[in-house]
Amino acid sequence: MKAIIQTDPGDPTSLTWQDTPTPTPADGEVLLRITTAGVNRADTLQAQGHYPPPKGDTDIIGLEASGVIEDANGCVRPDGTPWYAGDEVGALLSGGGYAEYVAVPAGQLLPVPSGYSLTDTASVVEVACTVWSNLMMTAEVRKDDLVLIHGGGGGVGLFAIQVTKALGAQVAVTAGSEEKLEVCRNYGADVLINYREDDFVEAVKEEGGADVILDIIGAKYLNKNVSALAKDGHIVIIGMQGGVKGELNIGKLLSKRGNISATGLRYRERADKARIVAATVEHVWPLLENGTIRHHIDRVVPVQDAAGAHQALLAGDITGKIVLAVE
Amino acid sequence: MKAIIQTDPGDPTSLTWQDTPTPTPADGEVLLRITTAGVNRADTLQAQGHYPPPKGDTDIIGLEASGVIEDANGCVRPDGTPWYAGDEVGALLSGGGYAEYVAVPAGQLLPVPSGYSLTDTASVVEVACTVWSNLMMTAEVRKDDLVLIHGGGGGVGLFAIQVTKALGAQVAVTAGSEEKLEVCRNYGADVLINYREDDFVEAVKEEGGADVILDIIGAKYLNKNVSALAKDGHIVIIGMQGGVKGELNIGKLLSKRGNISATGLRYRERADKARIVAATVEHVWPLLENGTIRHHIDRVVPVQDAAGAHQALLAGDITGKIVLAVE
Repeated sequence: MKAIIQTDPGDPTSLTWQDTPTPTPADGEVLLRITTAGVNRADTLQAQGHYPPPKGDTDIIGLEASGVIEDANGCVRPDGTPWYAGDEVGALLSGGGYAEYVAVPAGQLLPVPSGYSLTDTASVVEVACTVWSNLMMTAEVRKDDLVLIHGGGGGVGLFAIQVTKALGAQVAVTAGSEEKLEVCRNYGADVLINYREDDFVEAVKEEGGADVILDIIGAKYLNKNVSALAKDGHIVIIGMQGGVKGELNIGKLLSKRGNISATGLRYRERADKARIVAATVEHVWPLLENGTIRHHIDRVVPVQDAAGAHQALLAGDITGKIVLAVE
Repeated sequence: MKAIIQTDPGDPTSLTWQDTPTPTPADGEVLLRITTAGVNRADTLQAQGHYPPPKGDTDIIGLEASGVIEDANGCVRPDGTPWYAGDEVGALLSGGGYAEYVAVPAGQLLPVPSGYSLTDTASVVEVACTVWSNLMMTAEVRKDDLVLIHGGGGGVGLFAIQVTKALGAQVAVTAGSEEKLEVCRNYGADVLINYREDDFVEAVKEEGGADVILDIIGAKYLNKNVSALAKDGHIVIIGMQGGVKGELNIGKLLSKRGNISATGLRYRERADKARIVAATVEHVWPLLENGTIRHHIDRVVPVQDAAGAHQALLAGDITGKIVLAVE
């Protein structure tokens, strides 16, 4: 098969479409022929050498894809019925999406939501699993909570806004431009904060503090997030775009009885991923199918231009998702 | 009535037994005649000016007491039956324990465990509510977890060891002397770590890492606790004997999908305290009554010597609890 191979490990732009062995599915895995792969910020980190794949997994980049099952390999759905060759699916991956084929554990396959194309499906797998596992399975957002979402205009951000609103909670977002904030507003955000102009701590405190903060910044925002937190609030860190080490004021955290979790999907055990995928399909897929949550694809580019896609994402040019067309 | 009054706010030893107005119970509060008051490390912080009472509450020190209801004031138990004058009870307080009388919200009254004296009861209220709310309601300790308890020989520590073992989990403790560690072993601790001689991170890693860490140290241990944590582990910080501000390595926390909570009982809403008290009576009281958990009173001193009790606690001389006899 062909796949995106990083020909120079030291050069994040050396992503070339070339021949490589087709993977062989192990027991409990199907072989998926990929039609579309989603691009995630984590992919750009991997290309920079900062985010290695789990031990034993492919080092081809790509954490989500959609396509057609080529070899079901005897795998079954959660309800025990078989998967068949020819079934169209989405897939949550620990790597390998930027390719013509990938082996996928059966528990990480998701049906195509009704009304969705395969391209649409590839754009929602990773964000849906990320948002549901963090907002609900970790932070347990409740009706009338105020949820602060950093990077509201990104792929995770736009999705998180809509899931939060569907849960009956209020949403505050930060973003770096009025255009992105306007998109956030269109997707339901209640409080819009331009972080280049305003202090999000003050803005969120005026609303009574955030019960949940979904954070992609890490160290740079750690202390500010604690300041913006409401009593019994929960900060969930899923990215470290603002650095790895930061000072934590434990006294301030304790005065709020605050909670901090730092999570990710990629290194979880398969059983844990299957649990998250099943919960996401159960709770989020109906919201996609009835139109409560809309996906937002900024652009579709050929997989051969993966390097260009990474550059666009890193430049902050993307609102919502960028996906790669494999065929 | 008489109570311990701090005559010089700048001097933590100026604790004198003198006349002060008897409190008047508000609606939903009983008037309790105190026989015994527990001493907690937080009391020593308050005497040093670091731990003010919640707004509107008494500034008399003392977070737990036992005694006899003097005026039930129409209050009822959680099951709707009345409290009566003459009933013997324990009480979780936001302050006011070092006194002859205190007004107590009805939701913060606890029955005297069968087989327990009033003195015994005063020694377990705060530790039982602290341990249950943190180990179960916050960290949700599960069977076969490894729980690391810092300060295993203290009042909270000895109680936490026993609750953890009752939940079917394993216990590692840190303490500063072989004598204290021997007491911890007698109460069920599995892994004994003398922090003056050994690195607790290495010792806990050898056991596979801690699923839950109950921490009273704060900043000084923050980074070490993250290092000692197992995947999906939870650090619960309930004290800051080692400082307030510490560096957090978010990358390391994220690689473990770790969680940090910082909590306390004192500033919680009354409804929240009532919820914790009810859960503690439901789950912990039976363990006291059937002997699964033993209380450990190091010494009983007259309330008039509150200052001496604080000094003994701060000197590290106390294993288990020190309590004050009011009559």
